[in-house]
Amino acid sequence: MRDFLPAEVKAREQVLSTVRGVFESYGFAPLETPAIERLEILQGKYGEEGDRLIFQIAQRGKRAGEEADLALRYDLTVPLARVVAEYQGRTGKIFKRYQVAPVWRADRPGRGRFREFYQCDIDVVGPEFGLADAETILVLTDALAAVGLKGFEVRLNSRKVLQGLIESYGIDPAREADVLIALDKFDKIGEAGVAEELRERGLADAAPLLAGVAGPEEDLRHRLGASETGRSGLDEVDRLIDLAGPLLREGVIQFSPVLARGLSYYTGPIFEVYVPEGPLKGPDQIKGSTSAISSGGRYDDLVGMFAGRSIPAVGGSLGIERIIPLVSRGEEGVVSPAKVLVAVWDAGSRPDALAAASALRAAGIPAEVYLGTGRSGNMGEQLGYASSRGIPYAVLRGPKEKEQGIVTVRDLATREQTAVPEGDLVAHLSNLLSAT
Amino acid sequence: MRDFLPAEVKAREQVLSTVRGVFESYGFAPLETPAIERLEILQGKYGEEGDRLIFQIAQRGKRAGEEADLALRYDLTVPLARVVAEYQGRTGKIFKRYQVAPVWRADRPGRGRFREFYQCDIDVVGPEFGLADAETILVLTDALAAVGLKGFEVRLNSRKVLQGLIESYGIDPAREADVLIALDKFDKIGEAGVAEELRERGLADAAPLLAGVAGPEEDLRHRLGASETGRSGLDEVDRLIDLAGPLLREGVIQFSPVLARGLSYYTGPIFEVYVPEGPLKGPDQIKGSTSAISSGGRYDDLVGMFAGRSIPAVGGSLGIERIIPLVSRGEEGVVSPAKVLVAVWDAGSRPDALAAASALRAAGIPAEVYLGTGRSGNMGEQLGYASSRGIPYAVLRGPKEKEQGIVTVRDLATREQTAVPEGDLVAHLSNLLSAT
Repeated sequence: MRDFLPAEVKAREQVLSTVRGVFESYGFAPLETPAIERLEILQGKYGEEGDRLIFQIAQRGKRAGEEADLALRYDLTVPLARVVAEYQGRTGKIFKRYQVAPVWRADRPGRGRFREFYQCDIDVVGPEFGLADAETILVLTDALAAVGLKGFEVRLNSRKVLQGLIESYGIDPAREADVLIALDKFDKIGEAGVAEELRERGLADAAPLLAGVAGPEEDLRHRLGASETGRSGLDEVDRLIDLAGPLLREGVIQFSPVLARGLSYYTGPIFEVYVPEGPLKGPDQIKGSTSAISSGGRYDDLVGMFAGRSIPAVGGSLGIERIIPLVSRGEEGVVSPAKVLVAVWDAGSRPDALAAASALRAAGIPAEVYLGTGRSGNMGEQLGYASSRGIPYAVLRGPKEKEQGIVTVRDLATREQTAVPEGDLVAHLSNLLSAT
Repeated sequence: MRDFLPAEVKAREQVLSTVRGVFESYGFAPLETPAIERLEILQGKYGEEGDRLIFQIAQRGKRAGEEADLALRYDLTVPLARVVAEYQGRTGKIFKRYQVAPVWRADRPGRGRFREFYQCDIDVVGPEFGLADAETILVLTDALAAVGLKGFEVRLNSRKVLQGLIESYGIDPAREADVLIALDKFDKIGEAGVAEELRERGLADAAPLLAGVAGPEEDLRHRLGASETGRSGLDEVDRLIDLAGPLLREGVIQFSPVLARGLSYYTGPIFEVYVPEGPLKGPDQIKGSTSAISSGGRYDDLVGMFAGRSIPAVGGSLGIERIIPLVSRGEEGVVSPAKVLVAVWDAGSRPDALAAASALRAAGIPAEVYLGTGRSGNMGEQLGYASSRGIPYAVLRGPKEKEQGIVTVRDLATREQTAVPEGDLVAHLSNLLSAT
């Protein structure tokens, strides 16, 4: 669990607001669901390990030792499915939504993993395979490009391709989940590692399948031709590459038959996006990783579990917690949103200082009054406060200035000071700030 | 617990972003703390009833029947105090922060009350009584004015005034909390009701105090002169009225000696803001209520409970869940952020439609492609989709248009259709949208 001090909030918010802007430019609309869901809504949707990681909440008035019936949101997809089922009349036949919000997992957090973290999802509920799948890939990759990531690679497959292979290699279809779990590790443990894992799972007969997905694409396509499901999956992959490929900015899309995706609810196309490196240079450069920074796919059966009738859906998400360090310098501490610090000479100057700041704000200039209550004339301390918070200008007005009807404007960076007639202060600072 | 569909998110976000803008114009910076705190951090800070309303969370891997050591955030003030103690070197001697975020209470929700709701707080940690207290009142009332509330009334008191009265009326200082709890109900149950409650609490000797706070201000001020604490409290009230009064927009500030505020952690000035009615007219008019829409005060001892040394603080909050219905129409359902729907004639038109939408977005025009997969030429359904989501324009391109190298732009409101050469589409829509 993390606290974000103001400088970090600002850095994160810049990335998030760019991403939201891209989502909205595609007509995705924001949805907000509560942090707390009924436990029964979440249980059984994320697999056995997932169930263990759901944070359970004690009932009202109950303490430790009593039954939990509530839980913290584990992802944003299951709440979406619940919402679509609950508000069918209001969401309409096609529901395009995005949600950027924290989720919680009762995990033992590793390096860079947290028990509270943000997810950043877009989904289209309603349409069958086609345009919606292409748009899912396009909106996510556009968002990656908008935050500065380039040269990414979209790896595309279809669950139907994998099912077709299982069929054509004569593997028991009941073992599909085990085959996918092993295949999903291909990137991390390589072909030999997956072969070993298949053997351990009693799936030695799946070795030819593994050789097939890792082998020449032409042979694989030929093999898939023998299965109707396989042909249909291949057709999905090819149509998506044709639709999305020409519009993909800053990256490429390609068929990746080893891609399996862990989650059990996918039914059609699946994809992952990889990036070679972040845009920051020098010591801030963070190498892109071998795990995906965005992923998604089609899940035509999940919404139906809540709606009581089949409702197709496709969607994906950005691994926003991994993307933020790739594209923004991690800043810490406090930055002020103010552009001007109005210094306070002594207790008698307070009303004037409040009035000056109020006049600046009325002209659209964010201004803060120094709120400390030290000894009179402690200008060094006040200017230090402004500098440490990144406030570019300070307004000073001691007894001498007051007598002469002027104020002093100090540029905190250059330490240059300018005497300005009282009545010209707002105009003077407006000019300075619009010039920068 | 509530879901917010896109139209509601938009209405809420308009109010919240106005409020954040005012906070930032005063130099308050955003802080984000996690939803989950350690239970021991929260317990014992909100009184006995408050402790009961804390949502407890089971430990990692634990189920029902085991010890909870985590809890959901109950307010934003205690997490602030923890943060200041934890990051003292980084927050500095003066820390001005705002936080707009959900909190959770294991309450049996009544009309208009929820177990998950937003709080909207600003606080200044560091400065002693003075400018910071005035600024707290000014920034909150400026935010109220910015969202459209007018004619509000700031009621101001000081805990020291109440302590001075308790002292000067010879009431046992150990009974202060009971006197305050009874007094706090003055607005709801009136003078007779409070008198009855004081009797029930075995505080019949506090009846003269009640008569004093409800009586002529001159007599009360005379009475307070007898107590040093009372004089100091009165001085705080008068100085705040002098500092904040002249800059208060759209409202008045006045001494309100019956004001007590329930929370136990206040140590100096306390205030509440009331509003006569919301700005909406006609059937949407919602009457202002007799409970406060904003409140706050000085709490010089709370941060010290975490920091191990005394750190003064003052702050306040907007009752944002009550303010939103006062200032915005409650909207429901889905609105699209897109300004243009690109209709899709048939499967063969999909690449053209994706490319047209992409070109519009590249020119800064939010555009969505119709993602439904119905029969060819189902333009009625596609235009219905655009209308229901408030998208103002649709772009249509059937076989005839394609042959002639044109597209049809339809205004969904007027149903007017214009034929535009393909190459002029972006410029045409830019003009239409910049004109509105």
